[in-house]
This record gives sequence, structure tokens and C-alpha cells, in this order.
Amino acid sequence: MEKLVVGIDIGGTNTNYGIFDKEGNCFVKNSFSTNEQDTFEFFLEKLYQEIEKSKKEIEDKYNIIGIGIGAPNGNYYSGTIEFAPNLNWKGVLHITKLLKKYYDIPIILTNDANAAANGEMIYGGAINMKNFIVITLGTGLGSGIVVNGNIVFGHNGFAGEIGHTIVDINGRICNCGKKGCLETYASATGIKRTVLELINTNNTPSILRDKKSNNISAIDIEIAAKNGDKIALEAFEYTGKILGLKLSDTIAHTNPEAIFLHGGLSKAGDLIFKPTKKWMEYYLLSIYKNKVKLLPSQIENSNAAILGAASLIWSELDKSINQN
Amino acid sequence: MEKLVVGIDIGGTNTNYGIFDKEGNCFVKNSFSTNEQDTFEFFLEKLYQEIEKSKKEIEDKYNIIGIGIGAPNGNYYSGTIEFAPNLNWKGVLHITKLLKKYYDIPIILTNDANAAANGEMIYGGAINMKNFIVITLGTGLGSGIVVNGNIVFGHNGFAGEIGHTIVDINGRICNCGKKGCLETYASATGIKRTVLELINTNNTPSILRDKKSNNISAIDIEIAAKNGDKIALEAFEYTGKILGLKLSDTIAHTNPEAIFLHGGLSKAGDLIFKPTKKWMEYYLLSIYKNKVKLLPSQIENSNAAILGAASLIWSELDKSINQN
Repeated sequence: MEKLVVGIDIGGTNTNYGIFDKEGNCFVKNSFSTNEQDTFEFFLEKLYQEIEKSKKEIEDKYNIIGIGIGAPNGNYYSGTIEFAPNLNWKGVLHITKLLKKYYDIPIILTNDANAAANGEMIYGGAINMKNFIVITLGTGLGSGIVVNGNIVFGHNGFAGEIGHTIVDINGRICNCGKKGCLETYASATGIKRTVLELINTNNTPSILRDKKSNNISAIDIEIAAKNGDKIALEAFEYTGKILGLKLSDTIAHTNPEAIFLHGGLSKAGDLIFKPTKKWMEYYLLSIYKNKVKLLPSQIENSNAAILGAASLIWSELDKSINQN
Repeated sequence: MEKLVVGIDIGGTNTNYGIFDKEGNCFVKNSFSTNEQDTFEFFLEKLYQEIEKSKKEIEDKYNIIGIGIGAPNGNYYSGTIEFAPNLNWKGVLHITKLLKKYYDIPIILTNDANAAANGEMIYGGAINMKNFIVITLGTGLGSGIVVNGNIVFGHNGFAGEIGHTIVDINGRICNCGKKGCLETYASATGIKRTVLELINTNNTPSILRDKKSNNISAIDIEIAAKNGDKIALEAFEYTGKILGLKLSDTIAHTNPEAIFLHGGLSKAGDLIFKPTKKWMEYYLLSIYKNKVKLLPSQIENSNAAILGAASLIWSELDKSINQN
């Protein structure tokens, strides 16, 4: 029987999953609302039922051999989701242990950006790279760091939280409780906050003034910028400046070959890439200048998170083969 | 014959070297002025003569099997010292290639902080650690990052330049040409600049006002602080705040088990450790709080650099044994 794996991406809004073969072909995928269940146990029961339903859609000549999970604050070592601010269930959630009741196969957890980085390494633009970083620009800013061909998990399993490095100690309040974190500037919500700040502090006309604050989205800002809206253009420039500055700090840590931008805001193309690259180069130490590529993810975005999660299982299997 | 290795530390002022066995015992060590020679080739000739002189001091039952070198901007991959601001010889210096003319044995180069990190892993406080960072607080701020038991060299061989992450884009001018680099605040010269700033901006009495600006050293500031001098104490507090803030950013990258402080300024003990630890914890993301140790280097400082350089050879030999 052909071997397949399940890739699951647990997000603050939706939980997506898919079933993939080793080449990354998607056999079935589905999505359901994450926070509808009262308890985490009910959520897992729902997840199990959904996966079973999907399994029926594919012929019974396939064998599911593992489950990879990407989740906010997912800890690779302990298999727990710990204090994820965007999930309804608080504290430490023992997801791999609890899921073992349903599936007695290898289950691997890590955070969503690490999963994306693994996917990029196996199926995307980092296939021949040993040292690179994936930055996910969604509601927040996630990061997965790869060194010598391996995801960096760190001593406690929580490496790669570049979104919470500090831009300004007196800066914007972050969901994490700190002030001035990078993700309060460089993310879909960060650019929206920048637009609101610009609207409040100057008189430049802007189509975005016609919208309620709550209703402005990163897509609105992108469309406005493409139509020449000055506030929107300035917001992209500012976002790129802050992101470029902090990426120059990141490069001074692990000296990657490339940084991949991933997720909603990265879809704005040149609007975000150009200023980020310009300011990154400006702030880089001379030994790094013009040596680090800034690239869009090469994985189709709608599948990136679940494919990345699935890839964790294939990587682990390859590792154990190499060790034996 | 017992096998020994040479460890060389090339600094902006002095070049130190020593001959060590695998247990880290020093058989002979010596030092000479780095920048006295007009050309880099003359410097290497001098280095060769000095090493040969030292070899004669030890009995002829020993066999030198390798040379490890720590140098500013030393590149592990290419064996070159590239554009080191504190050396007289500019451009790219092919040190391992040129030294091969004198010694046809393995020669390994890296930067001084990476060498110190390797020494800490083999002989110091990081013996049982797989993920840690060494910060050297000397004239500048160097760093060596270890992930999964290996020094991170990065794609171009220049990983670990935390001293050039940016504290303030409009901050102090750095020797590297940028503004506001961490090492302009957190280093022996950084704390001196802080003292001068404090002297200029307030009226607090201080023993340090009696000295010429050029003559104030980090040791003077340490002695003054130990005697209760308010300017000196405030300078240590400020240095620790900036260092703690930027170490919190660093932890968000590789989530180390410990950070070791090394070099002159770290000798000030609680004066630098207490504020650095306090502010590091203050700025850390909650998942890291109280999990990362801040420790003094466990290697006797006078030998740390050359022992670290020597340890590069033993590590490489161990690696090739494990691969065979």
C-alpha cells in the first residue's frame, strides 16, 4: 500500500488538514473552525472525525503512516501547545499524547513557521539550501530558522520567535504582553496599525479614510497602494523599513543564504519586498551585504502550512533511515 | 609521541599562542605584538619563528598535529581573514593557505568568539550543552552561537556577529561604519562611552571626572563602581539594560540553554551580570522567562582564546573519526 501522511495546521481561526504522499501530492484536504469546541478534548474528537471522513474519500489502498502538526507555540520536544494567545484553550495542551488515543502512528508537532520552513526545504525554494529562514507574515509574524539542514528547535523547543524581537521598547502593545515587538509592525495587523497611525498623524488624502478602522484589511491596503494611495504606499515603506532593520539583526545571528517571505502580506510582491530588501541591505554589516537573498516562498500558499506539517513526518523518517 | 596542537589568537594589539594537549593542558605559551610587521607575509614569518622557538622549549617527544586560529572576521570555510577593522593589513588575508607553506598539517580558522565557544564546549561550562552562546565583552562584542552541538558558521562563514545588531538606528557611531551597534554600548569601550555621556549630561560627582577621557578604562569604571561611584554604577546599569534587551532578541532566535559572558567586562561580576540578567528577563517573551542561564565563562580567561583556538583541531578530528 502506498504510504501517505496527514498534515495539520491549527490556526487561531481555522484548522486545515490534508493527506499527502512523499512527493507532496495532495490527495484530499479540508478545513473546519478551530474555536467552536468548548474543550480541547472535543476539538480533538472533531479533528479525528474530520480526518476519518476524509480518509474515506480516498481509496483504501493507501496507508496513513504519520501525522505532522503545525500550531502556534507548538513544542517539538514535548508535543505540547503552550499558552498560545490566539487559541481558546489556555495553558499547556498535550496534543500529541492525546491524539495517540486515536492514531497509534508517529505524530510530530512544531510551530507553524517551523513546519513552513520544513516544507520549503523539501518541496519549495530551499531544496538545495542548508541555511535559510522562513518568515510568515500573517496575523502575526512567525519564523522558522534552518541551520546546517535542520530546523533550529533550541534547548526548550521554542527557537524562532523573531516576531517578538523588540523594535522599540516604548512601542506598540503586543498580544504577548510586551511592547514594541516586530510583529506589531511587520504583519497584516501591523501594517493596518501603521495605516491608522498615518491617518491620525497627517492630512494626506487616502481612500482608506473612508473605511471603519476595524474593517481595514491588509488586502485593502495593498489594493490602495497599487492605485497610488500615498498613505498605503507610505505604510508599505515603513513596514519594509522595520522588517529590513530586524532582518539585518537576524542575519547577524545565523548568516542564512536566503530569507523567504511567506503568508498574506508577502503576496503584495514588490510593495513589501522592495522596501524590505532596500532597508535590510542598508542596515547590514558589510560582510553580509548583497549576500543574502530575500525571496518569496516557492510553495503554493494555500497548501503551504499543511504540506509543511506533513513534511515533518517524511523528514523524521529520512533521519531515522540515515541513523540506522 | 604525544599529540599536541597549537592555538593562536590574533588580536588587534597582541597575537597570543600556546601549545596544548587534548586535555587542555598548556605546555608553553607566548605573545608578541600583532601590528609591528609591515606586511601580512612578514607577520606570518614572525609567527612561524615564534612558534618554532616555543617548540624548542618542550621536549622532542611531542608531535604537533594541527593549528587552530581565532581571528577577527576569520572565515571557517575560506580560511581567510576578511576586512578586519582592527588589523593593519586590509582586504582578504589568506592565512591558512599561506601558513601551509610553513606547516603541512590541518589548519583551522574561525573568529575569536567562535573559538571561545568551542573551548567552552570542550573544556568549560558548556561541556554538557548542545545549545548555548558565548558573548565576548572586550574592545568590541563578539559572539559564538552553538546549535545542536555545532558552532553555527552560516552560509558565508560569518554567523554570530551579535555585536553588530542595532540598538538605535540613530545611535553611536561604530567602527564598522554603521550606527547604534550593540558593541558601541556593551563592551569595554561601550561602557566608557556611556560614562563620558553621563559625565557630560548631568552633575553627579564622580571620581571619573578627574581622569582624561582617553585614559578612562573599563577597569577604572569597575573600581569606581565598587567604591560606590554613582556615575560608574549607572553606567553598569545602562550597559546591562542594553545588553539584556539585545540578548532577549538573541534568545528569540536560537533559544539557547545558556549564555556565557566572557572577556574583560564580564570580570566585573555582579556589576554587569545583575543588570544584564534583570533586563534580559524583563524583555523576554514569556515562554523563555527563567529558562536561559546567564553564566560567566568557566575557562580561565588568560588562556581562553588560545585554548579555544586549539580546541578547533580536536573537534575536527573527533568529527572525522565519527564520520569514518
